[in-house]
Amino acid sequence: MGSKTKGTDAERELIHLFWATGKWVAARVAGSGSMHYPAPDIIASNGMRSLVIECKSTKKGQQYLARKELGELVLFAKKFNAEPWVGVRFNRQDWIFLRPEDLSIAGKTYGTTKREAAQKGVSFAGLLLPERN
Amino acid sequence: MGSKTKGTDAERELIHLFWATGKWVAARVAGSGSMHYPAPDIIASNGMRSLVIECKSTKKGQQYLARKELGELVLFAKKFNAEPWVGVRFNRQDWIFLRPEDLSIAGKTYGTTKREAAQKGVSFAGLLLPERN
Repeated sequence: MGSKTKGTDAERELIHLFWATGKWVAARVAGSGSMHYPAPDIIASNGMRSLVIECKSTKKGQQYLARKELGELVLFAKKFNAEPWVGVRFNRQDWIFLRPEDLSIAGKTYGTTKREAAQKGVSFAGLLLPERN
Repeated sequence: MGSKTKGTDAERELIHLFWATGKWVAARVAGSGSMHYPAPDIIASNGMRSLVIECKSTKKGQQYLARKELGELVLFAKKFNAEPWVGVRFNRQDWIFLRPEDLSIAGKTYGTTKREAAQKGVSFAGLLLPERN
């Protein structure tokens, strides 16, 4: 299975998690590549909070994001009045969600490791907790 | 060009219109068919209003929507705290946007004609007017 298919499967799994709550709705955004506009991978809302999520799934022990990618996520979120989140799914682990400011910076690249993500990130259940705002 | 490609092109055109305002962001939702969850074609927001739009482009003089399709749009909008809209693009005409309640009902089908749409719908500029709410 290619990494693109695997990424799509991981995003679909996340969509299922949102719908399974009964309170949240979520949709996958169509391939942003063809449109040249900033776009997250997933948009979700419970009517009070809206989340825009950049999703990454990896077999490695760390995950990087280009500064441009993160900047576009933050821009989209700001205009949408939504919260920007980066969802990382390390192999055989549950989703972990990080705020952009929880990522480490190395030159023009942002990133996180399994260890850092476990320390700074929140689980899917944690992501939905309203008191986070 | 197939109707699906044509529909996608029409949706992309609409995405361009939103971004061109400088105030709105918009994203196309990935093929809802594979997910089995309600999903609009486009989600747009200016940070104050969020719109979920079902898009239809047709060469004919009328456009129909199945009751299920419209019901899912309204459900998604309600959970998202967004406004549900149906965007119709008749051949060689600009987009016209209708509220679900502006569609005519015939059995299990909702629909509109060029004439009805022109009377009840709003243009893209009209769609963005804040005083509509």
